[in-house]
Amino acid sequence: MSEKYTEMWRSLGLNLEAHQGLLAVLSDAYKGIYLSQKNRPEGMKYFDFVISEVHGRRIVEIVEEKSRGKQVFGTFCVYVPEELILAVDGLCIGLCAGADVGTEEAEKYLPRNTCALIKAFMGFKLAGLCPYVESSDLIIGETTCDGKKKAYEILNEITGKVYVMELPNMKAEEGKRLWRSEVKKLADKLTEVSGKKITLEKLNEAATVVWEKRRALQRLSALRASDPSPISGLDCLLINQVSFYDNPVRFTQMVNALCDELEGRVKNNVGVVPKGTPRILVSGSPMAIPNWKLHAIIEGSGAVAVGEESCVGERNFKTQADPQFATVEQGLEAIADRYLTINCACFTPNEGRLDDIQDMAARLHAHGVIHYALQFCTPYMVEAYKVKQRLEEKEVPFLRIETDYSMEDMGQLKTRVEAFIEVMKDGMNK
Amino acid sequence: MSEKYTEMWRSLGLNLEAHQGLLAVLSDAYKGIYLSQKNRPEGMKYFDFVISEVHGRRIVEIVEEKSRGKQVFGTFCVYVPEELILAVDGLCIGLCAGADVGTEEAEKYLPRNTCALIKAFMGFKLAGLCPYVESSDLIIGETTCDGKKKAYEILNEITGKVYVMELPNMKAEEGKRLWRSEVKKLADKLTEVSGKKITLEKLNEAATVVWEKRRALQRLSALRASDPSPISGLDCLLINQVSFYDNPVRFTQMVNALCDELEGRVKNNVGVVPKGTPRILVSGSPMAIPNWKLHAIIEGSGAVAVGEESCVGERNFKTQADPQFATVEQGLEAIADRYLTINCACFTPNEGRLDDIQDMAARLHAHGVIHYALQFCTPYMVEAYKVKQRLEEKEVPFLRIETDYSMEDMGQLKTRVEAFIEVMKDGMNK
Repeated sequence: MSEKYTEMWRSLGLNLEAHQGLLAVLSDAYKGIYLSQKNRPEGMKYFDFVISEVHGRRIVEIVEEKSRGKQVFGTFCVYVPEELILAVDGLCIGLCAGADVGTEEAEKYLPRNTCALIKAFMGFKLAGLCPYVESSDLIIGETTCDGKKKAYEILNEITGKVYVMELPNMKAEEGKRLWRSEVKKLADKLTEVSGKKITLEKLNEAATVVWEKRRALQRLSALRASDPSPISGLDCLLINQVSFYDNPVRFTQMVNALCDELEGRVKNNVGVVPKGTPRILVSGSPMAIPNWKLHAIIEGSGAVAVGEESCVGERNFKTQADPQFATVEQGLEAIADRYLTINCACFTPNEGRLDDIQDMAARLHAHGVIHYALQFCTPYMVEAYKVKQRLEEKEVPFLRIETDYSMEDMGQLKTRVEAFIEVMKDGMNK
Repeated sequence: MSEKYTEMWRSLGLNLEAHQGLLAVLSDAYKGIYLSQKNRPEGMKYFDFVISEVHGRRIVEIVEEKSRGKQVFGTFCVYVPEELILAVDGLCIGLCAGADVGTEEAEKYLPRNTCALIKAFMGFKLAGLCPYVESSDLIIGETTCDGKKKAYEILNEITGKVYVMELPNMKAEEGKRLWRSEVKKLADKLTEVSGKKITLEKLNEAATVVWEKRRALQRLSALRASDPSPISGLDCLLINQVSFYDNPVRFTQMVNALCDELEGRVKNNVGVVPKGTPRILVSGSPMAIPNWKLHAIIEGSGAVAVGEESCVGERNFKTQADPQFATVEQGLEAIADRYLTINCACFTPNEGRLDDIQDMAARLHAHGVIHYALQFCTPYMVEAYKVKQRLEEKEVPFLRIETDYSMEDMGQLKTRVEAFIEVMKDGMNK
């Protein structure tokens, strides 16, 4: 299958041999983790196809769009306003960061004690394995954590195309003002790169596309509140991952079609697991493709993941800005303000996230919460203390996990998750 | 000696037994590292006395000042404006953070992968070993790195007296505005805590005290440019450490008296080491008392440390704001702007620090630079790459060290530093 793309990959400057190896590993992992699931919704076929073509068909589309004069904007964070990118006819693409790739190369630039996600985005670039970063006209970073903030300086040295948005550390008035100004500066930068002005019509149109996408993801999230859950956590994690690089209009249609099917399942009490299966909310660091490790363990241990309080999950779509703006200026401010409702651990204080976790656990009828932090991801690792405290107050079972992308700790994690599920079951029987 | 302070320590809530042990270790370390040095200036006697009374006489003074209605403001960062604290008659005190103390307790709150300095300030508080934190009316934190930013949330939960200043991530116009606003907010907070308004007279007076202190430290730094160096790096590191907690007026007098003596030494070509001794600039993470590890290794290996591009060092005193303001408002802005000239690795980009290092290496006639990062101190660890690059361009020998407060790697570090000194010598002989 992949031979037809070889010329394209070569022209993008990929390392063909290593890339072939990566795709083979990805395909095997997908078969083992995803295609082996029982009773999956029909609507997942689209996402199976998308993932099988993650570096193929989608890259062909992107190359075609570029040949029609569109630009590609690569991102690593839900704080980068997709609305603005779409408003200049740009493609907003989450870049590769989910696998141990090019680690040795990355460690020539970054300390070993760097989180797996940051090492991975450097590694993918250095090893020539991410067609998305090679297609990008601009990489838009942000100052969300020390590791990314400082790694972007080096990534810019390597690629020459990194633009960094400054996110404040607090959400007080001055921070809001700074962020609004950053969103306006990004609008100017996008216009500079694309040669296209952001008009009110374009902005409203783009914001509507993003609004519809978020609404579809909200609909999917709400359906997971049912017992039995009509869809696995693994499948929902995948959909959230795909949301970062698929065509947003098509993606929204496909998620809505899937939700129609899931509504039928809920009506008929059909689930992917038996009613009464222990339900887990996952909260913490983002999980980029193909980081399916924790969900695979949870769902391979007789529980079901019912939500992700994560950037690859609820944080990305929980809040909305009404997409009908009166002026471009007002639109940019409303969009900036909406992004600042996201409760990332990079903020201090960040009590809103504790509320979000508590609300999600209640709304999705979770029996317990697993806090997932990438090793060396300081903001989430430290905030885990506060999450634990809040959940203990509310008597919600809590498990804290720190891990990376390697498979070495799979056995140990599985043992801990299984023990946690037993604790949850004790609570369920009370 | 310390028996006379027991009652005071008890009333501050210290853990008396453990505290006694800590002081004994400190005293032994000081004897071994400091008092064994040859040919020290007479002027160091004052600093020997100060350190021998670090938890004694100075705490008596602080308790007395408090009984006269003054407040104590504890800090962990050179970004907290001392001028404002002095302007409300407050005492500005750098808190304990330089030793492995209360680590087990701290790790109940913080991840193991936290830098030694952050673990230490939590550990000192939790173990009841820092009379300064116990005397503090307010602890003023800042958002300089992920670890501190998030640890302050927990420290506030424990102490109930943490106030956090937001430092921006960039030095662009909006960041400057945010920081000016933060400095004004701090002024209000200090007035609230102390009940004292910041008047123009008070602000000018306070700014003059700080200006004089910085000028004395600049004078000391300049004297280290001489070959032979008239004073050891260890002694200068100590003086910089003491600058964070001593009475600033007395401290300035004593540094100036020492500098008078050192000027005599320079005139007469008297040094603590022979002329031609290899000279090293140290750059990186701050070194809080009693973190003398790297300097002890350098100066125990036949080289001399001639400068510290560090918060405990040059970053703290390199730039000045003229202390005669026309209005309080203008003074606060000038002070805010002055602090933003500090080139901390928490900023992106931070090219100014590379210039500072290059300038210092030239000005102090250093033969090489050792980059010192505390393990898990992401901003400095990542920025080390840029420092290395800049110095390689300029053909300045460079060594990169990551360590913590333990003594376990002393042998290994000594071997690396000795080898580095040999490399430097090769360069010197060319």
